Amino acid sequence: MDDSVLVMIDRPDLARPDPAEALRAVDAGNGQVRVNDLGITRGDGIFEVAGALDRRVHALQAHLDRFTRSARLMDLPAPDHDVYRLAVRTAVQQLDDRHPGRESSCKFILTRGLEYPPGEHEPTGWAVAMLAPDHAPERTTGIRVVTLDRGLPRDVMSSSPWLLAGAKSLSYAINRSVIREAKRRGADDTLLLSSDGYVLEGPTSSFLVVLDGTVVTAPAEDGVLPGTTQADAFRWFEQQGIPVRTRSIRSEELAGAEAAWFTSSTRLAAPVRELDGRPLPVDAGLTRGLNEYLLQRDG
Amino acid sequence: MDDSVLVMIDRPDLARPDPAEALRAVDAGNGQVRVNDLGITRGDGIFEVAGALDRRVHALQAHLDRFTRSARLMDLPAPDHDVYRLAVRTAVQQLDDRHPGRESSCKFILTRGLEYPPGEHEPTGWAVAMLAPDHAPERTTGIRVVTLDRGLPRDVMSSSPWLLAGAKSLSYAINRSVIREAKRRGADDTLLLSSDGYVLEGPTSSFLVVLDGTVVTAPAEDGVLPGTTQADAFRWFEQQGIPVRTRSIRSEELAGAEAAWFTSSTRLAAPVRELDGRPLPVDAGLTRGLNEYLLQRDG
Repeated sequence: MDDSVLVMIDRPDLARPDPAEALRAVDAGNGQVRVNDLGITRGDGIFEVAGALDRRVHALQAHLDRFTRSARLMDLPAPDHDVYRLAVRTAVQQLDDRHPGRESSCKFILTRGLEYPPGEHEPTGWAVAMLAPDHAPERTTGIRVVTLDRGLPRDVMSSSPWLLAGAKSLSYAINRSVIREAKRRGADDTLLLSSDGYVLEGPTSSFLVVLDGTVVTAPAEDGVLPGTTQADAFRWFEQQGIPVRTRSIRSEELAGAEAAWFTSSTRLAAPVRELDGRPLPVDAGLTRGLNEYLLQRDG
Repeated sequence: MDDSVLVMIDRPDLARPDPAEALRAVDAGNGQVRVNDLGITRGDGIFEVAGALDRRVHALQAHLDRFTRSARLMDLPAPDHDVYRLAVRTAVQQLDDRHPGRESSCKFILTRGLEYPPGEHEPTGWAVAMLAPDHAPERTTGIRVVTLDRGLPRDVMSSSPWLLAGAKSLSYAINRSVIREAKRRGADDTLLLSSDGYVLEGPTSSFLVVLDGTVVTAPAEDGVLPGTTQADAFRWFEQQGIPVRTRSIRSEELAGAEAAWFTSSTRLAAPVRELDGRPLPVDAGLTRGLNEYLLQRDG
């Protein structure tokens, strides 16, 4: 496979004087993990995906910080930032050498290691850079979104931390299932709501909504993943003089939505053109400016 | 690795005149899957684990039926039963040749195939037989159990099928997290409750409780996995003249529990000797009889 670059990481939880010693470059077509790795047998690991363009990796430090946060929420060994940073940059640069100027993304993973034989095992780690699909249609025309119940209350992170809300784990079957449900309903993506009626996030995106002229998103305390792209989008909105606010959002407030976006690392800002069947205006110029800014980020 | 046997399956969703054509035996130590398999990148697949002893595979047909049910709940291609049955029996028999008389388990898996490059991919499948750890202590002394909130309401299967309750998916990070939480609380395992106060199941077991002389377990409609070992345990209890019943259980009823077991495919029936700190009597003779019965099952 010519359009991805894989870097396997030996002991991804170990700091080293020279982080390069941890890396093992592998042809992505042959890149494999053991069938008894807990990452596959139990979805027991964590991941991040950073976007990249022209060898720049967008918000890499923010992704590394969130990676560490997920490890803590799941009682996993802390990933070494220097090792992962080098693995990600190596994979992204090698892919850019082959496909200069193409947008890409780099997924990096840490798992709890082998399930079998019983006992403690070293964590498994790798980073893989892949060419990004063409997201221009979603970024310009926008996406249709339906709301679905996530089943869990808004306070799940504090009341039931064992449910791992806010951890970006490999157990993403539900995140994929809700997209299939959205497509069955004639939409492109899903906005998840808490069981007690609060607006959360998309299955692979943050949700930003304009209410009374302010761009609003839900806080991490409501059990959503703190968005790396959302944080940078807020920075840009502020630069444009548009007020932003992070606060809990009642689902009834969506009736007054003036505009909305889903933000994520590879698709970046996708305007919501329809929410539960109701058309929303798409500001093409504003969205283009935001995505141009997001594509320029490095590190 | 001498103590496991891996059989990879080519196109596990295809029926064939000779199912043996689908099997590819691989040394388990070298058995690998692609790093971009959706089984690992998104926990997007399903699994079953059947116990085995002396080349008998316990409740294999029931496991295959539940495997198919999970595939349907997750919009996955249906696994071919003949192919999986042969893969499981092959792996179990080869392991028994090396370790005669040892208890083992066979895990079988189907994933949605590769995540990348984009597009539809063939599902990935395999079966791996492993020696079972010694479960005698849990089967005789019993286990300490604490209740934890699963966060979801009892009717989640009908109200929100996209949350995949009742599907045995590879996204098991929460199932492992609740066991870590139990250990932090000085217990061995967890009994999950619905957010509206109903008794569900363990993270890898069914829960059977004696109330007013009847062995009771929660129904599949309450979002629990229909237990293959639980079904056979009920059969055995009935043979002993002990009444059984499948019905919703309020958590308040646990205060009147006369005895309880966790049943699962490898550990089999583990008596609960303590529930939320309250000692429960363990009937050693009854439990031994039940486990002897469960070990004799085939097919």
